[in-house]
Amino acid sequence: MRDRTGLLFASEAFCAAFAGRDYPALEALWARRSPVACIHPGWGVLEGREAVMESWRGILGSAGNAPAVSPRDARAFLLGEAGYVTCFESFPEGFLIATNLFVREAGEWRLVHHQAGPTREQPEEDEDDPTRPRAMQ
Amino acid sequence: MRDRTGLLFASEAFCAAFAGRDYPALEALWARRSPVACIHPGWGVLEGREAVMESWRGILGSAGNAPAVSPRDARAFLLGEAGYVTCFESFPEGFLIATNLFVREAGEWRLVHHQAGPTREQPEEDEDDPTRPRAMQ
Repeated sequence: MRDRTGLLFASEAFCAAFAGRDYPALEALWARRSPVACIHPGWGVLEGREAVMESWRGILGSAGNAPAVSPRDARAFLLGEAGYVTCFESFPEGFLIATNLFVREAGEWRLVHHQAGPTREQPEEDEDDPTRPRAMQ
Repeated sequence: MRDRTGLLFASEAFCAAFAGRDYPALEALWARRSPVACIHPGWGVLEGREAVMESWRGILGSAGNAPAVSPRDARAFLLGEAGYVTCFESFPEGFLIATNLFVREAGEWRLVHHQAGPTREQPEEDEDDPTRPRAMQ
């Protein structure tokens, strides 16, 4: 359970770095020794740390304002020395659905892969909230 | 390298079971002991083996004809006793982009998580092929 909580914290830290446009914090969360990749919404596969980090620098640098992303309904799945978190990413425009895959490196959970894409669903906790954003199609 | 090849074979077997509407083969590829989840295109998160298998029975059972899905540009990433494969899923209507996450169980690579979503990109090997399908938006 402690490990699943650690996974959730790591996933939240990733979203917080994204929301805060904190590139150094985001970069520090990605694995150094394990092979990394990333699939942004609508993109193909970015392979390797250099390509993935370059994409994040572009995304964080190009936004006029910090994207107010926050994770919702996060769920952690432990696979020994690896683990993954699924969550909705809540933006002002709506929701994406994401997988964050981690490995343990130097005693910390570090990201090796992220995939986010559109969803027609929304977090359960928001079902009665009339102010909730709509799903991005 | 042998392990990455094994991962690629497991991912191909998954696509073949999907394309062949072979539910027993597909079911056998999913992990029994590790926590499983699945994100179909546009869906939310399905959590647990029962929910994931029910979704695949529905998908395989509802298609009028076998979806002629085939993996393209598959890439394997080894994480010790876990590993993931990214690939384009080529359908007659276009491409999806997917992540297949595996763990080693009983000496075999078994699926624990699958996420697929739309992509604007296409496999590199198809760039000069005028008959290639277009990306699904």
